[in-house]
Parts: sequence; C-alpha cells; structure tokens
Amino acid sequence: MSAATVAETVTTRAVLRARDVVDRVDDLLVVEEPVEIRLEGTPLVVIMRTPGHDAELALGFMITEGIVSRPTEVSSVESLGEGRWDVYLAEGVEVDPVQFQRNFYSTSSCGVCGKASIDAIRVAGTAPPPGPEVTRDVLAGLPERLIEEQPAFHSTGGIHAAAAFERDGTLVAVREDIGRHNAVDKLVGHLATTRWPLHALGLLVSGRVSFEIVQKAAVAGLSLVCGVSAASSLAVDLAEEFGMTVVGFLREGGFTIYTGEERIVGLEPPFLPPKGGEMA
Amino acid sequence: MSAATVAETVTTRAVLRARDVVDRVDDLLVVEEPVEIRLEGTPLVVIMRTPGHDAELALGFMITEGIVSRPTEVSSVESLGEGRWDVYLAEGVEVDPVQFQRNFYSTSSCGVCGKASIDAIRVAGTAPPPGPEVTRDVLAGLPERLIEEQPAFHSTGGIHAAAAFERDGTLVAVREDIGRHNAVDKLVGHLATTRWPLHALGLLVSGRVSFEIVQKAAVAGLSLVCGVSAASSLAVDLAEEFGMTVVGFLREGGFTIYTGEERIVGLEPPFLPPKGGEMA
Repeated sequence: MSAATVAETVTTRAVLRARDVVDRVDDLLVVEEPVEIRLEGTPLVVIMRTPGHDAELALGFMITEGIVSRPTEVSSVESLGEGRWDVYLAEGVEVDPVQFQRNFYSTSSCGVCGKASIDAIRVAGTAPPPGPEVTRDVLAGLPERLIEEQPAFHSTGGIHAAAAFERDGTLVAVREDIGRHNAVDKLVGHLATTRWPLHALGLLVSGRVSFEIVQKAAVAGLSLVCGVSAASSLAVDLAEEFGMTVVGFLREGGFTIYTGEERIVGLEPPFLPPKGGEMA
Repeated sequence: MSAATVAETVTTRAVLRARDVVDRVDDLLVVEEPVEIRLEGTPLVVIMRTPGHDAELALGFMITEGIVSRPTEVSSVESLGEGRWDVYLAEGVEVDPVQFQRNFYSTSSCGVCGKASIDAIRVAGTAPPPGPEVTRDVLAGLPERLIEEQPAFHSTGGIHAAAAFERDGTLVAVREDIGRHNAVDKLVGHLATTRWPLHALGLLVSGRVSFEIVQKAAVAGLSLVCGVSAASSLAVDLAEEFGMTVVGFLREGGFTIYTGEERIVGLEPPFLPPKGGEMA
C-alpha cells in the first residue's frame, strides 16, 4: 500500500479559529494546483488537482477517459516540470489529440476555466468591493438557516447549496445543485435580475470552499465567502489577492477565518473562557 | 425567497436498503442531467447539473465566467428544448464564443467529457465484467479501513479518497485528491501498472457516487462501485446500462444498493429483526 505522503498534499496557513475562544493557529489546508497533461507534446487538458502521484493521474486519466484502451498502449509518462506532464504512446498506437481536446469542454468546475475572467479583473485593476461586515453571531447562525431552506438535501442527502445573505444573516436566496459551482451560478443568475450589484451580500456554500467557488464569487463581486467545510490552498490564495474574506468550518457555532478577518466583527476580547477541565 | 422545487430536482428509485434489516424501499435520488448553454446559437459549454432554474444557471455562468461583465449585457435566455438554452446579448455587446469555448476545457469532472469513452464501450458491445462478489460484512467494514488509510483527510478534513478493495475487504491502494474524479484517476493509474485488468476489484469512494465516478469505473473495468454518500440518478442509470453494482450510504454498518444486488451476498433471510420498541 502506498498512499500519497501528507507533505505534498497539505500546506500550513495561519488562520483565526473561533470556537469557544478565538485563537490564531496554524491550520493544515489541502493543496489545490493546476496540472497540464499533454499527449506526445500536444496539450490535452488542464486539471485542478492535489499534487502527488501526478504520473498516475495522467495515466489513469488516459484510461478512464477512453483515450487509450489499456495500460500497455502508453509507453511512458514524463515530467516536463512546472506541473506539466507528457504522455507517450506505445509503438503503433495512434490517437488524435485534437479529437479529445474537443471532448474536454467543461463543467466550469476546474477553476482554470475562470482564468480569463480573473485576468479580466486584474486588468481592470479595480479595488475589491468592501463587502458586508458581519458579526460572529450572524455567522454562527447561518448553517441552521441554510438547512431550513434546502428541500432537496433533506430528501436525498446528496446535493450542494449556495445562499446569499444580508449582513443581519437573512437569507436572500438559496439554490441547490449536484454541482457546487452550478449552485453558485444559479444563485448569481437569480440575483443578477433581482439584486445587482451584489457587494452588500455574503455567499454561503454547503460544502468546501474551493478555488472555483472563490473565483466565481470574485467575478460576481461577492467578497465574503463562507463554507461549512474546509477551504483549499488556492482558494485562500485567490481570496487574499483580491482582498476577499474566506470563512470555513462554519458549524456548531464556530468557524475558521482563512483570510480577510476585517469583515468579521465582534472578535475582540473579552472572549468566552475555555470550557475548562470538566469535560476532560 | 424562491428555492428550486423538490419535484424537478429529485427522482424516486426502488433500492435495497440494508440496515438492521434489509428492505426494498423507494428512495429519493438527486437528478443529474446534462444541459447545453449556447451563445447566440453557438454551443459554448455542456454542464452536468440538477434540473431547475436553468435560465438562472445560464445567466450566472455567463457572469461568473466573465463572458459578460454585468447582467444588462444579456438581453434574454431562451429555452431551445431538450436541455438546451441559448443566451442572447444586448444590442452593442460583442463576445467571440470561440474564445470562450477554448477556455472551457475540463477537469473531466463533467461526465459528459467521458461520453466518447462510454460510446466506445457501447460500440465494443462487450458484456460487463462479472466483478467481485462481496458479503454484507465486508461492505460494512470498508469505511473504517478507508479512514485508516487517509492521511491528508485526517489533517485537513477536506479531501476525497478512492480505494480499490479485494473481495475479502483488503484495501489494495488508496489515493487522495481535492477532486473526487482525480482520486479515481490516480488510483486507476496506479493499478494500471501494478494490477491489470481490474475486474476482480471493487471501487470505494469517500463521498457521493456521481455519473463521472461510474463512467470512469465502467471504462476501467470496475463493476462494483461503493460510496459513503448518495448516488445520483444518472450514475445509477449508467450503472444499470452496463450491468454494474452501485452501493451508497455505506456508513455505520449499513448501506443502500441502487442497482446490481447480485454482487452482494448474504442478503438472504433470516435477517436480523428490527430493533423493536425499546428505542421508541
């Protein structure tokens, strides 16, 4: 059994963790980075992935996407450095890369897809919108409100939600989808016709805060992004670059601020004391 | 507040649910179907989504991917029927669709990307591999084994895993990634060089069983797919078509068989009796 080593798949970041007390701690985040897979020199696909076992990823992708029909059709997978890998075919095996390039059009879930839009923001050079300031209590109450508004989740347990909220915690709209990015797109599409611009609103997602979610929020002008689960490294990097706020692990009254703590008010002392020894 | 109606986002399927007793029940699944978004007639992207709020999805996608910079640049979003939507721009707004088609290359997470490979299986007309037969107890013990082998999950709480297992429940290999599809590709890539073909192995994923997971498993020759969370409607449809087995909600000793129960042995009577009234 060889599993990926933890070293290359996680990274450490200083975060603000609010539970019973608020602490500055070093937290571990999953690393998320793009990798490019080429087929004998021709770029085939860019995938957002966690580093480690990249050659296996390239070979597995070739098989599960039907580009080759068995492992022996691949002669080698070689690193070109800087997150690029090239797959070479065995003698006599012929594949037209262009045919497959066409197939890999997207769900928009790769995040790299949004590169053009992010570059557009960079070129525009606009300052990040201030975004809403919210209190600890408002944040802590959001997950319960979201669950109340998730009809499909209740019945199936298998769907993502995205919600927009006012600074007092009122949910403005909720959308559900099997794809987390689709839930955000549906939400933004709804708000586009009913409430624009979106600077005064926060975004809450039912799962992880990935790069794609922050990318879509940035382009839509939503500066405060909250998730019930963890944030990825690249999500936090992008949020920092654009002066956004990312809150994760928003559950059971607590949360973790990965970046942009200036939008969360009420973190000043005196904090609640730790629960002490009676639980030990 | 208008949320998606439950009616269009979920569907009912007959499943075999194994908890303390084994029952045939009707279960609710999240619907997953492709939608095509066009820009003034030119196909732009195909997205796997849950039906409902499709016009909002199209508009939101246009905004969050930076294709338009504000809602007023879109004049209308119109249904072409059969899951196709066309976006029309306001007068004077010009966008080159080809530029964006190029950007939407994929993570392979849309499932539609795998259409070529699935069609290839169909054309080949091969019977589905028999796949392993496993017992209830083996299934029930898998989640605990997976957790033991997930180093990055332990430290971050934000990563997916895919594992291959023998019919006795032994894990052959585990791979982790922030993308569920990448975890499967890494696993298949590893097995491709160490253990091929894969017909005798089962596949276990740490999250939901989506269409893309079943698609990749089918192409790789893995006929038994188990997940800790729910399966989507299209995942089950595809598995049925190829004679595969899909098991979901594999947790706390129980599970749900969506299709292909012939590979799970030990479901015959006598079953354990229900827990009875003492818990009521």
